[in-house]
Amino acid sequence: MVNTKPYVIGIDMGGTNTVFGIVDARGVVLTSDSIKTRKHNNIEDYIDELYTECMRLIRSIDAEGKIYGIGVGAPNANYFTGMIEDGVNLPWPTPIPFAQLLSEKFGIPVAITNDANAAAIGEMTYGAARGLKDFIMITLGTGVGSGIVINGQLVYGHDGFAGELGHVIVKRNNGRLCGCGRAGCLETYCSATGVARSAREFLEVRSEPSTLRDLPIDAITSKDVYDAAMAGDKMAKDIFEYTGTILGEALADFTAFSSPEAFVIFGGLAKSGELLMRPIRTAMEKNMLSIYKGKVKVLLSELKEADAAVLGASALGWEAKAPAVQQVAPSTAAPAAPQA
Amino acid sequence: MVNTKPYVIGIDMGGTNTVFGIVDARGVVLTSDSIKTRKHNNIEDYIDELYTECMRLIRSIDAEGKIYGIGVGAPNANYFTGMIEDGVNLPWPTPIPFAQLLSEKFGIPVAITNDANAAAIGEMTYGAARGLKDFIMITLGTGVGSGIVINGQLVYGHDGFAGELGHVIVKRNNGRLCGCGRAGCLETYCSATGVARSAREFLEVRSEPSTLRDLPIDAITSKDVYDAAMAGDKMAKDIFEYTGTILGEALADFTAFSSPEAFVIFGGLAKSGELLMRPIRTAMEKNMLSIYKGKVKVLLSELKEADAAVLGASALGWEAKAPAVQQVAPSTAAPAAPQA
Repeated sequence: MVNTKPYVIGIDMGGTNTVFGIVDARGVVLTSDSIKTRKHNNIEDYIDELYTECMRLIRSIDAEGKIYGIGVGAPNANYFTGMIEDGVNLPWPTPIPFAQLLSEKFGIPVAITNDANAAAIGEMTYGAARGLKDFIMITLGTGVGSGIVINGQLVYGHDGFAGELGHVIVKRNNGRLCGCGRAGCLETYCSATGVARSAREFLEVRSEPSTLRDLPIDAITSKDVYDAAMAGDKMAKDIFEYTGTILGEALADFTAFSSPEAFVIFGGLAKSGELLMRPIRTAMEKNMLSIYKGKVKVLLSELKEADAAVLGASALGWEAKAPAVQQVAPSTAAPAAPQA
Repeated sequence: MVNTKPYVIGIDMGGTNTVFGIVDARGVVLTSDSIKTRKHNNIEDYIDELYTECMRLIRSIDAEGKIYGIGVGAPNANYFTGMIEDGVNLPWPTPIPFAQLLSEKFGIPVAITNDANAAAIGEMTYGAARGLKDFIMITLGTGVGSGIVINGQLVYGHDGFAGELGHVIVKRNNGRLCGCGRAGCLETYCSATGVARSAREFLEVRSEPSTLRDLPIDAITSKDVYDAAMAGDKMAKDIFEYTGTILGEALADFTAFSSPEAFVIFGGLAKSGELLMRPIRTAMEKNMLSIYKGKVKVLLSELKEADAAVLGASALGWEAKAPAVQQVAPSTAAPAAPQA
């Protein structure tokens, strides 16, 4: 069967920017752009602008009538219900029936999921996890997200909210306060924000010299720590060691759950490369139950940073069904993309 | 199609006893018996005795030629390979090609998995998890085991070793030494053995009176602690509170992985009932990410204690394939048992 609709729209809604692009079945982002998520006080105006901008892109590549579906990665988006259930970083009241609103506006099927799940689908379809049936995507950005794939299927759980590994407690006593209202969550240590928090802690608790002391302490970012570490600063290197060790210990525990073939590390902090990957691998191996030792890879995402979020969301677009069936159980996560 | 072989053999191999029974498609254990696992110095003699005893049972109910397959729950048994890969509590050198040896002896297909997975399959087929597609079985015995079911399928992981939740680290610093060679594993606190260890710790560290002080400290069992708690002993009740709290905190973390509809608690310690279940539920709810609160049940196993292990293993027997295909990827975990 020839698919006469060879494109999907991928939308990555972040707390600041919403990035969108038109993607073909090979995973090529033909054109993309972005709007400011917080510009509009109500969701309808936001969707109007998104529609206008997407239609402009569609016309620019002569793709009118050729869009199969829309895939969206958004914070706390639920694959089963099509709702954004609790958007702490979004300016609109939740829950938002986002898949329905978008589908009504565009007149094509929409599938939504949270951003980390979208990244996992993208990685499985186009990236480092091609061919893997059991892997866990770990996204290191402002927070820590995860997308879990078992036996080739994305794990949604009974309510669509599986895979919140950034909120596993890694420090039970006296842990750092988390945006979720609890304390000691993995993401308070291993996100980009967590690295910056570690820097502030290290600078206060330790007395040794560091080039990080030249910066205003409250403005230090993970990028500053990275730059200092690459320039040889001992404390900055220790901060990455500390971060990677906590993450590696957590990955060892996650392995006891689903025994994945690999973890795929994605997101802004993943750009730190071996500075972070080496302590992750070391701590993971050291803390693993013996039956798992030497078996589990830790890979860096192979998706291009600029395209990754849109690509991941777009891969979900091939799965999108008409709105009436949004609430049925999930099919296999691997998208039924037409092959060229 | 009429299935002319209406029975399966369920075998539960423990470190001390091996229990086996003939089970029909409704999950009725028609007859069962046991042998001592450690009686034989080599595995062939053990299998010979197992064969002799099973054949005796089969003849006693006129079931010759009517056995569809054999299901086995055994420590560290691998569903994919049919091997017992590392039998720390067994008297024979590992790995043992147990499915193959048994299948050659009996002349019928054999499927094996670890004891906790067998229990999960049994619970899904005949017990508290009937109708659930997403649940986690937690077995509290000498150790802590787990069987994870996601979307109706048992999770084996890429190597067959998924679901070792008893070896998730719950105390990162100064944790109790575990039989696995590491420290701080969940099972060092929340198994029957863990409860006895807690009793010894409490008795040494605290000065308050307790009826547990009348017992020789090194011989205290979880049963002693249970009896004391039921008789109103404050320290014994505190020990169950401590145990249940640690387990509940762990269940809150496990929820962030697969968002199950329920945890099913099974095994000797589960007989403690509300003494253990109340602090489990309280700590789980208190420590959960808000999106999961109030959604996840903690259930006691509904399988009869005496039959449970054999029933769980037997349910796997309906899945057994000829030995030549033991290494293929798993089919759906729910057994294709003939329905009466």
